[in-house]
Amino acid sequence: MKSLLIVAHGSRRAASNESVSKLARQVATLDNQFNQVQSAFLEIVEPSIPEGIIRLIKAGADEVVILPYFLTAGRHVVEDVPAEVAKAQEQHPNINLQILPHLGDTDLMPFWLNAAASPSTD
Amino acid sequence: MKSLLIVAHGSRRAASNESVSKLARQVATLDNQFNQVQSAFLEIVEPSIPEGIIRLIKAGADEVVILPYFLTAGRHVVEDVPAEVAKAQEQHPNINLQILPHLGDTDLMPFWLNAAASPSTD
Repeated sequence: MKSLLIVAHGSRRAASNESVSKLARQVATLDNQFNQVQSAFLEIVEPSIPEGIIRLIKAGADEVVILPYFLTAGRHVVEDVPAEVAKAQEQHPNINLQILPHLGDTDLMPFWLNAAASPSTD
Repeated sequence: MKSLLIVAHGSRRAASNESVSKLARQVATLDNQFNQVQSAFLEIVEPSIPEGIIRLIKAGADEVVILPYFLTAGRHVVEDVPAEVAKAQEQHPNINLQILPHLGDTDLMPFWLNAAASPSTD
């Protein structure tokens, strides 16, 4: 069973964290290859990345794809998220953990930015 | 003349800032309503938001649309970017400055996340 974990930084603003959880619920309703979609946070708020991975495993995942919900390749993307995933991998050597490129790294981003800059009401 | 300013946080990693500038250049090549597209940064690196706005005005803009390149509505989006734009507005009262919702706020985000989580090579 292949599951998706959307990983955000985590904020002291509850509404900001809730928006990430809501996104995970929305992605879960879309057509994709994942049986489960959940969110986790690098800092500040629970679940942490290892906790999020454990939740998915307990719910049956044997493969977890991690999508860093970050726009730029700062330290968090380059070092911190991979370190957290490595911790989880060590605890669960039989589970296939894969980190995708961070959201901002997609070739589609110029088109997404262009769409966001030109609302249909404009 | 309507111009777009893509505003990112700014990073100590030069490659991260360059990726934002590159995005601005890419968006400039797409079909949209903007005569110019440039980038600016809230912190750490130049140009600042007021500087970016001034550059666009000097190049002929009388209307500048500001797109916050942020995923979540933290303090930067809620307070800091608007404060910088307000400074620029005070200095240039005849220019129409408009802040768009931040990138993560678009209704399209669940679909974008789903696309990023399911690369076509998969």
